[in-house]
Amino acid sequence: MDVEQFRKAGYAAIDRICDYYTTLNSKPVSSSVQPGYLAPLLPTQPPEQGEDFSDIAADYDKYIMPGLTHWQHPSFFAYYPTAASFEGILGDLYATAAPHPGFNWSCSPASTELEAIVMDWAAKLLGLAPAFHNAAGTGGGALQTTASDSALVAAVAARERFVSVHSAPLNSLVIYVTTETHSLGLKAALTAADRYALRGETLRTALEEDLALGRKPFILMATVGTTSSGAVDNLPEIQAVLADYPDIWLHVDAAWAGIALCCPETRDELYLDTINTAVDSFCTNFHKWGLVNFDASTLWVRDRLTLTRALDITPPFLRTEHGDSGAVIDYRNWHLALGRRFRSLKLWFVLRGFGVQGFQAHLVTPPSLALTVFRAAPKSGDATGAQAEMEKEKKSAENELTHLNALNASFFARLARRPDLAITQTVLNGVFCVRFAVGAARTTEAHVRAAFEVIEEEARAAVKEDLEGQIAVV
Amino acid sequence: MDVEQFRKAGYAAIDRICDYYTTLNSKPVSSSVQPGYLAPLLPTQPPEQGEDFSDIAADYDKYIMPGLTHWQHPSFFAYYPTAASFEGILGDLYATAAPHPGFNWSCSPASTELEAIVMDWAAKLLGLAPAFHNAAGTGGGALQTTASDSALVAAVAARERFVSVHSAPLNSLVIYVTTETHSLGLKAALTAADRYALRGETLRTALEEDLALGRKPFILMATVGTTSSGAVDNLPEIQAVLADYPDIWLHVDAAWAGIALCCPETRDELYLDTINTAVDSFCTNFHKWGLVNFDASTLWVRDRLTLTRALDITPPFLRTEHGDSGAVIDYRNWHLALGRRFRSLKLWFVLRGFGVQGFQAHLVTPPSLALTVFRAAPKSGDATGAQAEMEKEKKSAENELTHLNALNASFFARLARRPDLAITQTVLNGVFCVRFAVGAARTTEAHVRAAFEVIEEEARAAVKEDLEGQIAVV
Repeated sequence: MDVEQFRKAGYAAIDRICDYYTTLNSKPVSSSVQPGYLAPLLPTQPPEQGEDFSDIAADYDKYIMPGLTHWQHPSFFAYYPTAASFEGILGDLYATAAPHPGFNWSCSPASTELEAIVMDWAAKLLGLAPAFHNAAGTGGGALQTTASDSALVAAVAARERFVSVHSAPLNSLVIYVTTETHSLGLKAALTAADRYALRGETLRTALEEDLALGRKPFILMATVGTTSSGAVDNLPEIQAVLADYPDIWLHVDAAWAGIALCCPETRDELYLDTINTAVDSFCTNFHKWGLVNFDASTLWVRDRLTLTRALDITPPFLRTEHGDSGAVIDYRNWHLALGRRFRSLKLWFVLRGFGVQGFQAHLVTPPSLALTVFRAAPKSGDATGAQAEMEKEKKSAENELTHLNALNASFFARLARRPDLAITQTVLNGVFCVRFAVGAARTTEAHVRAAFEVIEEEARAAVKEDLEGQIAVV
Repeated sequence: MDVEQFRKAGYAAIDRICDYYTTLNSKPVSSSVQPGYLAPLLPTQPPEQGEDFSDIAADYDKYIMPGLTHWQHPSFFAYYPTAASFEGILGDLYATAAPHPGFNWSCSPASTELEAIVMDWAAKLLGLAPAFHNAAGTGGGALQTTASDSALVAAVAARERFVSVHSAPLNSLVIYVTTETHSLGLKAALTAADRYALRGETLRTALEEDLALGRKPFILMATVGTTSSGAVDNLPEIQAVLADYPDIWLHVDAAWAGIALCCPETRDELYLDTINTAVDSFCTNFHKWGLVNFDASTLWVRDRLTLTRALDITPPFLRTEHGDSGAVIDYRNWHLALGRRFRSLKLWFVLRGFGVQGFQAHLVTPPSLALTVFRAAPKSGDATGAQAEMEKEKKSAENELTHLNALNASFFARLARRPDLAITQTVLNGVFCVRFAVGAARTTEAHVRAAFEVIEEEARAAVKEDLEGQIAVV
């Protein structure tokens, strides 16, 4: 493809994006393809000769588009939203236009320096204290791919800090995460019991028990806005307990909810004061409802040396004069991989394109932080409910949960089959629930109301089916 | 920004990319900005009100562009090349236009299915055996961000496989990497001594010693084409030794050189037969000279269950009917993070846009795999050389290396200051060397010849300076 062919294909790609967002509302939210749909449609090997891009683009429409779930559709209420702003698209386009691996300052000075600057912009937007600003020189922030990577980086730094002062066998080291923490893959070490949020007393008991057994907890990963239920761990209580255990690193994963800190009215509820005074690291994802296209997970640490001591490996071929002198940040030492993309461009474009007020106005969030977790639990009040109540009394108490779980699984299955919205499930302490997450940039009140009607319709149908004995309890 | 504003900004961005590649040859390769150049030029916080994108784009030209090192410049010979094809740019643009986190099949079926298909295309392009093809159902491939991530994923899977059959305390587990392996951050456990490549006898001795001490090596990370010197570990000898230690995982990191396997004439030299019969995992980076824009690291494993057993954490809110039934791949269990971008699009676009023959034709690689590592070592033959020879004899043998290292450091410093090429350094067994890596897509023979003249000029200048006693030996 030469320059003029690229110009033509590029314009067409831009037009296609415009068409996509103009017609998005009229598409089904979820794809209806079946597993394995694509393999029969494509060759089993690459072509011998290069093909014209117009053919490739046509195949994208024909074969790929029907297999997309439209995360930017206004009726997408599943998982969490994934941001796609025009500014974010342009940021990714500018970055990939002249790519570089970004592992040290010399790779492209603008990339490192812009990241340091816009991470400070983002810190200020969220109200993070100067301790976390790159400009202050002690702490600082860096872009990571996802909250999992951010948590892993924090864990590596925490372990390095811990073993530098304690001699602890590797297999005695313990990571504490709340049970409702995200699926990073670390094993939960304690159970949260208060509206799914971690309380101080639970933590203290767990610490005392583990220490008595010779275990060495070195990091606690607390969550502000859990994935399953939106619960917020009680950070002030955690801070009070950890004051007695100063070597334990406190990481706060606010992957989804953290963006809400841009609105000052949420800051008390999300414990910003504790974040600013007590945590060692803090993460939120601008790629959820922060208007920056995936991926853009922001991680801040209070002491940058804890990161670079744990992650700095500088072989000779990566050494540079400025790096050796300490005059510059080498961001490869702030994450796990070596190379990194120029992601700060899209964050810069979004923050400038929206401005603080535009960014805040975009987050029309009620105190629930826009995540609702619910289930169908029929009881008296209407005709169907009355019947259900009678049925319910027939069942023993211990079968009740099993029965309601089966009913709700059926209810959810109905919702999952609907092409006009996307929604997900979860299980909270054994209770099957439906999750409804609002936050796609194009969602309006009308979409939420329409979704409510669909939910009500399917709930009634599921309850009716249940009464007719059509739902098997397993 | 509304749709029409985006269309305008998008067209302008495409035009800008066309201009960039049309004028690239006339730009200096490296940026000449000084550390800290950007902070005084930008505000310290985001604007209150959104700004017009034309202002943002203008600032990109004014403030960011001067701080870029042009990795796609034909005179870029530093580190390794980073690919940027027009097809790759379009792939990233299409992907970011409708982003989704890609962690399971339902996220967007097209994303998972295309990845499985084009990873097979790529495997066939490189000559990898059917064992590694997704279609075969036992092994398979997935896109990772970088070779570091690929190595980390392999290590996690290897550890899980090892501890499932051996009870070994965590701190007895040992990772073997060759000293010239890339900067993943794992500690080197043995020294390679044959042209910087690992030989079988060295490995056997190290294994016997470590096992006698109670250590448990569970993975060997061998390298095909090391970063420092381009060395290729002797895979057939390694295979023979590891036949006696079948629980040790063999990972081959061919981040840079692996792409050359697309040309059948390189396959013997790069031990493709051994890769196909003996390795547990194999990685190469299409984002180096494989024409796919950063990031696109391809990882294949012989047994996909080793990966998913180690990495599968499926909380209720990520469960889906198809995932539970095993009918689909859930790629979140093939890498460390949860979310992942739709990277297979750019690989698809590149493989289709170039075709196998176009891809092969692009790699005009001599047997050296296009990496030359050299140093200035003046000796008799010309006037300068004769003088140098006399000087050299005056120095004791033990000072010789120190002196040549200082001379070459000065030589390299001269090259590093040149705006008309980019080049890097390395140290091989204590010997300071200059690295010259060819592979930018737009480099022609004329650029290499011009670079040779620059190198010769600066070498002569450095040697002259040395003779005049201007180079301090430290």
